[in-house]
Amino acid sequence: MSAPTVERAYSSADVDADYKYWSAANYLTVAQIYLQDNVLLTEPLEAQHIKPRLLGHWGTSPGLSLVYTLLNRHIRATDSDWLYVTGPGHGGPALVANTYLEGTYSEIYPNISLDRAGVLALCRQFSTPGGIPSHVSVQTPGSIHEGGELGYALTHAAGAAFDNPDLVVACVVGDGEAETGPLSGSWKIPAFLNPIRDGAVLPILHLNDAKISGPTVLGRSTDLSISDYLSGQGWAPIFVEGDDPRVVLVAFQYALTRAHDAITRIQHAARNGRPELGGEWPAIVLRTPKGWTGPHQVDGKLVEGTHWAHQVPLSGVRENPNHLAQLEQWLLSYDPRSLFDDAGAPVQSIRDLAPVGDKRLGATPHANGGKLLQPLVIRDLQNYSLDIESPGHTSHETTRVLGEMMRDIYLDNGAADGGGNFRLFCPDETASNRLQAVFEATDRCWQLPRTKFDDNLAPDGRVMEVLSEHLCEGWLEAYLLSGRHGLFASYEAFAMVSVSMLIQHTKWLQHAAALEMARTRRVPERAAHQHVLAQRPQRVQSSRPRSDRRGDSSGP
Amino acid sequence: MSAPTVERAYSSADVDADYKYWSAANYLTVAQIYLQDNVLLTEPLEAQHIKPRLLGHWGTSPGLSLVYTLLNRHIRATDSDWLYVTGPGHGGPALVANTYLEGTYSEIYPNISLDRAGVLALCRQFSTPGGIPSHVSVQTPGSIHEGGELGYALTHAAGAAFDNPDLVVACVVGDGEAETGPLSGSWKIPAFLNPIRDGAVLPILHLNDAKISGPTVLGRSTDLSISDYLSGQGWAPIFVEGDDPRVVLVAFQYALTRAHDAITRIQHAARNGRPELGGEWPAIVLRTPKGWTGPHQVDGKLVEGTHWAHQVPLSGVRENPNHLAQLEQWLLSYDPRSLFDDAGAPVQSIRDLAPVGDKRLGATPHANGGKLLQPLVIRDLQNYSLDIESPGHTSHETTRVLGEMMRDIYLDNGAADGGGNFRLFCPDETASNRLQAVFEATDRCWQLPRTKFDDNLAPDGRVMEVLSEHLCEGWLEAYLLSGRHGLFASYEAFAMVSVSMLIQHTKWLQHAAALEMARTRRVPERAAHQHVLAQRPQRVQSSRPRSDRRGDSSGP
Repeated sequence: MSAPTVERAYSSADVDADYKYWSAANYLTVAQIYLQDNVLLTEPLEAQHIKPRLLGHWGTSPGLSLVYTLLNRHIRATDSDWLYVTGPGHGGPALVANTYLEGTYSEIYPNISLDRAGVLALCRQFSTPGGIPSHVSVQTPGSIHEGGELGYALTHAAGAAFDNPDLVVACVVGDGEAETGPLSGSWKIPAFLNPIRDGAVLPILHLNDAKISGPTVLGRSTDLSISDYLSGQGWAPIFVEGDDPRVVLVAFQYALTRAHDAITRIQHAARNGRPELGGEWPAIVLRTPKGWTGPHQVDGKLVEGTHWAHQVPLSGVRENPNHLAQLEQWLLSYDPRSLFDDAGAPVQSIRDLAPVGDKRLGATPHANGGKLLQPLVIRDLQNYSLDIESPGHTSHETTRVLGEMMRDIYLDNGAADGGGNFRLFCPDETASNRLQAVFEATDRCWQLPRTKFDDNLAPDGRVMEVLSEHLCEGWLEAYLLSGRHGLFASYEAFAMVSVSMLIQHTKWLQHAAALEMARTRRVPERAAHQHVLAQRPQRVQSSRPRSDRRGDSSGP
Repeated sequence: MSAPTVERAYSSADVDADYKYWSAANYLTVAQIYLQDNVLLTEPLEAQHIKPRLLGHWGTSPGLSLVYTLLNRHIRATDSDWLYVTGPGHGGPALVANTYLEGTYSEIYPNISLDRAGVLALCRQFSTPGGIPSHVSVQTPGSIHEGGELGYALTHAAGAAFDNPDLVVACVVGDGEAETGPLSGSWKIPAFLNPIRDGAVLPILHLNDAKISGPTVLGRSTDLSISDYLSGQGWAPIFVEGDDPRVVLVAFQYALTRAHDAITRIQHAARNGRPELGGEWPAIVLRTPKGWTGPHQVDGKLVEGTHWAHQVPLSGVRENPNHLAQLEQWLLSYDPRSLFDDAGAPVQSIRDLAPVGDKRLGATPHANGGKLLQPLVIRDLQNYSLDIESPGHTSHETTRVLGEMMRDIYLDNGAADGGGNFRLFCPDETASNRLQAVFEATDRCWQLPRTKFDDNLAPDGRVMEVLSEHLCEGWLEAYLLSGRHGLFASYEAFAMVSVSMLIQHTKWLQHAAALEMARTRRVPERAAHQHVLAQRPQRVQSSRPRSDRRGDSSGP
């Protein structure tokens, strides 16, 4: 574990550098949404440079990129391990832009090279048939969280943090998503996250006031209400608000440093036997305009800071010369000549701002479970056979045997030492489901006060009981995608509660498996260009050991 | 609207009377769970009086009955209209007991008569094949909320309160249910409930510390945390805590009076054009022991106040003479001789404590939508036909036409005057779904601050947009079950999010329809005894006008 961090100097030159990085991310975001040619604006913008159909979400993107920019700086300063979960995953182009700037994108998809041809391919593939989706998906480097159905960002963040003591999961929660039931139920992380053995979750509640076409409840709530809401659930909020980019950069850098210091203090205190010195988990509340730095007004109507900036703020660009001119102005406002070199690659000073190797958010192995997965030790199934003397004479319960099997899985995979890579997730039904043999090996996980009348309840318990199928399913999904093993047990009647999550997760696994399968094929050079999705190595998410299949990789 | 209430005297004699009523409800709850004979304990309890299989939930029941008892008194004192939604609906025997004591049960199911035979039938039918479920269900008088899948109590409470300006919906939220995502997302009622045209929701957060076999997050949170959590979402909590029944009765009576006064003040201020004088919506936080007044210890182990009291606190009663004796003691502790007269009916002094007629919680027409339903005025469908000159030559959007139809439904059903009995529920997708013609007739509903850049947003808007399929579906369900009309529009990809609610609601409608169909048959006297579920009149829940079918009722 790293020592508590101290305030690190953040100079005006740093701010300028970060502003430039952020501008590059914003430029590439806009370019992905709009451009199919002249993507570096080396000549005047014309209608035929514009995509025939404009898709994507601009509104949330600048905020996501600002957080990315400062996480980059913070990771370099502290050499710490971070995972970035973006609830507003429909801001996909921002994440793609940032992973391109840091280099991970081109490493995984060589045809999206760090040059003019690469930027062109990057723009053309976005939200295009045969290309990539407009939201964060399995193809996005560093992602474990689908940006489609909203509500599961925080539960995924927590699932990835479990049993990863050195990891911090930064999790942006949009104020739209914050209205959903599952997200609303996910704030109770402090009751279940153990600061000794688990990593941390840093929620970043991003309030930009609006969702698709109306205001948001938290966006229109006072800071005091939000502070009450979060502190009532065990969080100490740090507020950052503004619309002047350089001021917000400084404020957010400060908030991030303070937050990480608070996390380190909590973990340090707990790991040294003095948890009472730790304090509360930090959370950042970030208020910035929706569609920040985009068109302020369009056709005389305010767009920046309103729901009109949610998706494509300038429409009909091919047909409307005024909109075309405004788009050109918008793109030029980021000064692309200063962002890209003669070859069309992001200038070195920008690329130098990213962390290196696996510290990059797009390259963290915690988002690529297959790299970290250790097979579960499971005893021979014969150990759990039942002797039946004659048919119909004895009575047994199948789940009771399953409980015994899970007990042994716990014992054989580190639970005896308080650790491990297996957890059972269940809505307070473990005993009711007759799985209680697991309590011979471990306890229910609980960080709040206990009484002497509690059963099998401990801070280092590894049975995750919370009365929420959504939390159980979401915790499990992220625990699996970050390379561990688990099981979600539910009453059959209530398994439907979280079925939409299961469908989305299955879709994720399906696409991940397709990536892996394609990787083992030898794809001819020309064909590779048309199969940009096919080359992501080792995107393995599964609860089954796959190490035996990792060896025979022979991809390009 | 009634004038603001004042503190009403609550005497020691009243407390004694309410304690007696509560004892009767508790007695009948225990009797339903355990007894199949000797149900009034007129002779010593023996093994054969005990049901062969013990089912049901004792833990939450005393709390639900305490609230019922004091709502009864409050309704009589104020002549106000209340609906009672019980999130912990698995406390079904408590609700059945209370509706039996107030007389509604016997009116609907004449074979459950107010005498010894009726009490016997009441006990025997409970959680028995051919009888009634152990949780609150469509058969329970006064219910609109299934006590199975947890999470929807508050959203149902709000849906029933919309457009019912004189109704207060008391809604018990268990601390188990409070852990679910949908319930956690439901607290944002103050952002959507209009104090001028809508009724009120009075949440009663019932903390008894435990769920099935572990503690609850809110149960183990401090009052300060809970206060922050609720006030951050627009509620002013009133705390009641205790384990001395007479003290808690007094404290809860006081809290209920204060809460209703606060509601009346908010509505009065808003309805007189001075909403700023109203203050915040009240909520009650009630901390009482789980399984209160039940066995304190069993076999030397603490039960009362722990999760061991969740279901059947004394098991194996037929086989274990000690448990049998303890059950007898428990039943006798309520002094059944003082609760039932010689005929076996609840004594008159108890029955007099209930409100009369439709003011009874089990008889409110707001829980029996068929009694209140006014058919929607819908124009001839020909109005919405599209002229097509020749195939494949013009392009139209079907949902745009649906939007125009809904606009007219709004206009023709009271929206022009700011009222009506129709609402559209949608997760911020009305315009995105091309239904925006509705905004020619009404606005989005919003009680929080507005800006001049908002579109179609108003406190009296009748389009309910919140980014939660669970809230939309739940609001709609209760709006329908309380006798109004509505539509939930969702992106098809996200309709699965709330599909388990839809299944449960459909099951509810199916059972309601079965009750109604059975009612129109002439059931022979003997058969009626075996079809106790068949006689509930007018249990109609539907969004379609049913008045034409109500006329030909010829049931018993």
